[in-house]
Amino acid sequence: MLSSSINSALRGSSVIRAMFNEGREMAAKFGAENVYDFSLGNPVTPAPEKIGTEIKRVIDSYDSLTIHGYMANAGYIEVRDKIADNLNRRFDTKFSGKNIVMSVGAAGGMNAIMKSIIDPDDEILVIKPYFGEYRGYVTNFGGKIVECESFKDSFQPDLADIESKINKRTKGIIINTPNNPTGVIYTDETLKALSALLLKKEKELGTDIYLISDEPYRELVYDGVKENFLTGFYHNTFVVYSFSKSLSLPGERIGYVVIPDEMESAGEVQGGVEIAIRMLGYVNAPSLMQRVVAECVDEKTDVAFYDENRKMLLDALTEYGFSCVKPQGAFYLWVKSPVEDEEEFVNAAKKYHILFVKGSAFGCGGFVRIAYCVSHETIKNSLPGFKELASDFGLLK
Amino acid sequence: MLSSSINSALRGSSVIRAMFNEGREMAAKFGAENVYDFSLGNPVTPAPEKIGTEIKRVIDSYDSLTIHGYMANAGYIEVRDKIADNLNRRFDTKFSGKNIVMSVGAAGGMNAIMKSIIDPDDEILVIKPYFGEYRGYVTNFGGKIVECESFKDSFQPDLADIESKINKRTKGIIINTPNNPTGVIYTDETLKALSALLLKKEKELGTDIYLISDEPYRELVYDGVKENFLTGFYHNTFVVYSFSKSLSLPGERIGYVVIPDEMESAGEVQGGVEIAIRMLGYVNAPSLMQRVVAECVDEKTDVAFYDENRKMLLDALTEYGFSCVKPQGAFYLWVKSPVEDEEEFVNAAKKYHILFVKGSAFGCGGFVRIAYCVSHETIKNSLPGFKELASDFGLLK
Repeated sequence: MLSSSINSALRGSSVIRAMFNEGREMAAKFGAENVYDFSLGNPVTPAPEKIGTEIKRVIDSYDSLTIHGYMANAGYIEVRDKIADNLNRRFDTKFSGKNIVMSVGAAGGMNAIMKSIIDPDDEILVIKPYFGEYRGYVTNFGGKIVECESFKDSFQPDLADIESKINKRTKGIIINTPNNPTGVIYTDETLKALSALLLKKEKELGTDIYLISDEPYRELVYDGVKENFLTGFYHNTFVVYSFSKSLSLPGERIGYVVIPDEMESAGEVQGGVEIAIRMLGYVNAPSLMQRVVAECVDEKTDVAFYDENRKMLLDALTEYGFSCVKPQGAFYLWVKSPVEDEEEFVNAAKKYHILFVKGSAFGCGGFVRIAYCVSHETIKNSLPGFKELASDFGLLK
Repeated sequence: MLSSSINSALRGSSVIRAMFNEGREMAAKFGAENVYDFSLGNPVTPAPEKIGTEIKRVIDSYDSLTIHGYMANAGYIEVRDKIADNLNRRFDTKFSGKNIVMSVGAAGGMNAIMKSIIDPDDEILVIKPYFGEYRGYVTNFGGKIVECESFKDSFQPDLADIESKINKRTKGIIINTPNNPTGVIYTDETLKALSALLLKKEKELGTDIYLISDEPYRELVYDGVKENFLTGFYHNTFVVYSFSKSLSLPGERIGYVVIPDEMESAGEVQGGVEIAIRMLGYVNAPSLMQRVVAECVDEKTDVAFYDENRKMLLDALTEYGFSCVKPQGAFYLWVKSPVEDEEEFVNAAKKYHILFVKGSAFGCGGFVRIAYCVSHETIKNSLPGFKELASDFGLLK
């Protein structure tokens, strides 16, 4: 009845869905304020006020067909120009609107790229741990996910392992920095070395290998770390962006793809991505929100809010004896499970009404992801439970 | 570099893109008011005023995370409930919100369904002429389009031909009534006979065969013809809807899929479609517009405007000697080419700055599609050119 790919996805997804349902049942039973749900990467800081005023301004300024009508599949050129200008100001790039394709969020952009570059049995490299949804984006088009290692202390990619996994069928590598689920930011050193490796392999194999940089957390960085932007490192780079986290607009499905002129046959690739957007039924990024984000590119959500959560949780968990890499971006803490099978740890936490996600959902067992995009109160009130948990596992000194 | 499917799509799309560019060049050369572009199915009647007021009301009524945040992949349950209520009032159905999945337009809904039901080499039947984008929606997932005949006078489907093309690999049949490109509405008789045929074949083959009813033009009907709604005819029916035409919101990408309880294992299919929405990177239908359309389900665009265009064009073209089936829905006229190769006809029309699309783009040569979703003036001013064209082909008596 259902396709085999959807059947297996249904089976695979049941664990996370079960956790979601468990959280709701817990909330019903113990009161929402007594359940500490760290399982979802859902922004909690409000969208900048300008979003609302801009939506109303657009409604009052244009006729309805201009606001809600069709445009080119790549989006309004004036919107794309404004995004290009914003990137140029911040990252010393030289884009024009023609380098930008508006997309239905980052997920829509990722799918359009995968559709554009993957033939059946082509391989896409990912670095463990990685956002589990990448699996679908690649297998949708008959591609294969190839998992590469990262170092278990820094979670920077293991370049030797990546090199060993590149072959004639390698179409690209997805990177995600700041990273979901670790919160780690790849260093300039890492990015330069990765770029050099890809370039060497392209020459050796005579193929194009795309670096696909998924950057929804680009602006969520702490400790004064500079925001990364990937096209300066390597010619065949796609940048995929979403306004979901930076402007707290996840439900609106608005983002973009950057295709730099330096990419091999950039014009043709761009044409391919635009057709993929149509074939996959996105058709175009939502029209009203295109105009709105174009006027809000310089806005930011309240990054300091997440930073406060980060410090509070990191300090407490470290004090209790948990070990984790210090995250410098995104809103996730990647904690080493005190027992090898992290599902045991996940289940033990439920006793204290604490919910977080097992690392194997990100291709990397033995760890858990704690999403700290919650209220300050949720964090504060969860700490006694975390302390008990540490004690249960013999971590507390 | 690009995938083979995108490469072949790029080659195939060049004809329509060439026409689009030609139209723009013509407009630059002769003035936009002297070019009669009937090539695009782009609504021209404004969105109901309530759309704008409702958008502003939502912005003023809720906090930003409630407006722009994530929700379940299927959409807000309160929105789905309102849509179900609206359908129940109009079509004597008994849906609840649980039968509705919000989608990124009809195109997004179609892709989610195809992803859910197609395994490689499965077959999806379409009835000639058909919306060309269906090809991509089916081949995206390794499926094969199987073209079936319609009768060349009425453009009702040829059931004997459909029957001969159903086999073990047949996963579904797409129907689209009111039809793009013919404007024809399938009669109740046709729909009953088609349903009986599918039921017979399901029993004979022991398979599920889905009827996928693509209904973006549902409300655009003329001559007092009643609006069709397909779930009453056949158990395994998906209804796919978009607000693009009925509320003139094509750029906003907002629509829905109906999965009736009568469908075999409806709950599981629904779960499959929801996962497909996530895997394909739609994630959810745009959140603000979900709330807006929920309050505007009883609104309508100015159908009388299109009706006036229909009559004006149909009367004139018939008078000039062209022959075409009388359209009772959508905003297309499907005209028989006076010469076998309709491309010759398409090219001849350009002399009079008239642009329309060759039938072979819809899998049915020997005809052309004239999209009359244009201003009254465009139609009026194009008529002398149509008359000359008729004379050139010896049609004018």
